Amino acid sequence: MSKDPRKKFGERIRALRKEAGLSQEELANVAGLHRTYVGAIERGERNISLLNIVQLSRALRVTPADLLEGIS
Amino acid sequence: MSKDPRKKFGERIRALRKEAGLSQEELANVAGLHRTYVGAIERGERNISLLNIVQLSRALRVTPADLLEGIS
Repeated sequence: MSKDPRKKFGERIRALRKEAGLSQEELANVAGLHRTYVGAIERGERNISLLNIVQLSRALRVTPADLLEGIS
Repeated sequence: MSKDPRKKFGERIRALRKEAGLSQEELANVAGLHRTYVGAIERGERNISLLNIVQLSRALRVTPADLLEGIS
């Protein structure tokens, strides 16, 4: 069985956020999400919805599909 | 503004489901989801979660990222 998709997604967000030089709070602000929610996403604790995936992708200037790369 | 991501996702699921020659009920069964839920997803009425995106992608034998192609 593959690694939990929530964990892989969280790791991907954290890596892209760091590449962009953003703090969790900065990413949350740009994406219109709450700082504690972004933290929980990065730890793989939340089952994020499509619309929030889209919000994060826009904030990170990638496509929604890019955020799911490597998840299977 | 782009088209609602939920609508685009629903159209993508419907197209891939038809390509696979599956009914909504068959797709729902393979994915472990409810038939009425799959119908609502295809109509863009639900904000699907990551874990259900993964379930549908496995049932359709594509990657989760493939399901988000064209959404921005």
